[in-house]
Amino acid sequence: MKRISRLVENISGINQEVVKKAQDRLDSLTKPLGSLGRLEELAKQICGIKGELALGLDNKVIFTLAADHGVTDEGVSVYPKEVTAQMVYNFLNGGAGINVLAKHVGLKVVVVDIGVASDLKASPKLLINKINYGTKNMAKGPAMTRDEAIKAICVGIDLFEEEFKRGLDIVGIGEMGIGNTTAASAITAVFTGKSVEEITGRGAGLGALGLKNKIDIIKKSLVINQPDPDCAIDVLSKVGGFEIAGMAGIILAASANKIPVVIDGFISGSAALVAYQIEPKVKDYMIAAHCSVETGHKVILEYLGLKPLLDLDLRLGEGTGAALGIGLADAAIKILTQMATFKSANVSEKKND
Amino acid sequence: MKRISRLVENISGINQEVVKKAQDRLDSLTKPLGSLGRLEELAKQICGIKGELALGLDNKVIFTLAADHGVTDEGVSVYPKEVTAQMVYNFLNGGAGINVLAKHVGLKVVVVDIGVASDLKASPKLLINKINYGTKNMAKGPAMTRDEAIKAICVGIDLFEEEFKRGLDIVGIGEMGIGNTTAASAITAVFTGKSVEEITGRGAGLGALGLKNKIDIIKKSLVINQPDPDCAIDVLSKVGGFEIAGMAGIILAASANKIPVVIDGFISGSAALVAYQIEPKVKDYMIAAHCSVETGHKVILEYLGLKPLLDLDLRLGEGTGAALGIGLADAAIKILTQMATFKSANVSEKKND
Repeated sequence: MKRISRLVENISGINQEVVKKAQDRLDSLTKPLGSLGRLEELAKQICGIKGELALGLDNKVIFTLAADHGVTDEGVSVYPKEVTAQMVYNFLNGGAGINVLAKHVGLKVVVVDIGVASDLKASPKLLINKINYGTKNMAKGPAMTRDEAIKAICVGIDLFEEEFKRGLDIVGIGEMGIGNTTAASAITAVFTGKSVEEITGRGAGLGALGLKNKIDIIKKSLVINQPDPDCAIDVLSKVGGFEIAGMAGIILAASANKIPVVIDGFISGSAALVAYQIEPKVKDYMIAAHCSVETGHKVILEYLGLKPLLDLDLRLGEGTGAALGIGLADAAIKILTQMATFKSANVSEKKND
Repeated sequence: MKRISRLVENISGINQEVVKKAQDRLDSLTKPLGSLGRLEELAKQICGIKGELALGLDNKVIFTLAADHGVTDEGVSVYPKEVTAQMVYNFLNGGAGINVLAKHVGLKVVVVDIGVASDLKASPKLLINKINYGTKNMAKGPAMTRDEAIKAICVGIDLFEEEFKRGLDIVGIGEMGIGNTTAASAITAVFTGKSVEEITGRGAGLGALGLKNKIDIIKKSLVINQPDPDCAIDVLSKVGGFEIAGMAGIILAASANKIPVVIDGFISGSAALVAYQIEPKVKDYMIAAHCSVETGHKVILEYLGLKPLLDLDLRLGEGTGAALGIGLADAAIKILTQMATFKSANVSEKKND
């Protein structure tokens, strides 16, 4: 926990002077003032985070963290638990949605086993940082120990710092874990105070009966565990997941190191809630890529005051929405750096209205 | 006009059998059913348009059509009219927003002088298809003759067909023309029946007084010209613009040749209204890239029943939003073609709920 506290001490506000400089630069470019809307906001935020006018986002990484959830014993997902491991192999073979979109956007995907329930075959493309073989069934007791929650956050910090050493301009988070919308819903209910019904969705495709069961299981888990909304580690250990803790660690480390971190969907969003509870300043370092179909995601975004860039009815996870968001961030910085100014292009400026 | 009529006869509905095949393919991929939302819809639409499962969108082109507007004499824009020509040079030098975003997405920009008010310096990168030196002031009479309107549509058809011969998978439309939101507002008022106040915005940055003047000028133009909403050529010639007519021609030609056409912002949207009045079937061939800040754009999208992909508060034009939209279309087709299936990746399918 000391490591996390030390890291968090390094998180400061973003540089508003640089935001102002970025605004001036944007206003000098050959386009009506503000006419690139949210791309301009994005460019300013990224510059403010980095503390300098960004020159480009060359090194783009998405971490896709995989882990299993004991609560799948309660029938909360339409896919069998084995799919977590199967999808990890799919990531390694380049066949998943995140692989296709990462290639499209030009970014690297780092696949991590942070708690898959089985031993995965070794691969040079797979990082194994297994905290345990899946969480325990939160409907019967805590999902993990406090030590495991802290360890999983530290794995996220380690993952980030390793890539940061190599050179990193922007980072995205994503996940894979059958059953993890159940954990995300529980976390969201605890932190936002909303009812379980309001923030629980159909996950990978539950019908009406399945959804009812999922809601009942989440309520039961909250009653049995009594997570304390004032303690992120308590919430994580009782109703969280290893991948969610790891993603929270990445958000904290990115914020401490002044790197923008792009949040994917609902489960990534629950990690954002965890990181925000630990240190609210992380909010300025986060970019919300999209708004998921999962109802709880909208609640998270509103709670954090984040405005999503995209609204494409996505609900896949893996970091797919974050990949598209990073593509827009890349476009935003190219606008800032590659467009001509009114002066350089000899274009007349606005008349007095 | 005969040429346009002949072309329009070739516009049929999109291939619903292929849409179904694309759906089947999408449902076989390693992701929960429908979990890539609008990317999946986009992939299906593109396949239906092409009449086959698309293999990729290698050849992507945006036409940026530039023209001047006589109505600028009435002080409807905060930028001087000379900016149209200055921005064409900026396009040719690669310094404008559309250049940066086109490079980002990997598409070709074709810059066309379809009616700039001055003679532009020749450049191998510039197509000169000038209908006239800008339109006439529509506040005093028709903006152009009927012949000019038809000619301008035919320029759009020619531009499309030239690129189509070279191989073309998807096309976008964009424009540059100081004063052209005034023409777009007039066209939108005529076709949608909405009040001028509802569909007129601040363009490149008018203040409150400027906006009031713009609304008055549009109303005056409509009273003087009495455009007939049942005749697209009448509307175009009385309150249109050369670039708007040309973009309508591109939409018609793309639809006749089964190529998806990505609409940019408000002015492109007014061209979509013109094409739709000529042949409503074009609707299925159009992809709305984004929803502009210009209030009239939302009215157009609702009138046509098009759902924009992006909502990024853009209002630059040039094809910038279309470029981002084409990037998403590219991503959608990559999802369709590059992802592994449940079978090929040995991933277990959904259980019965």
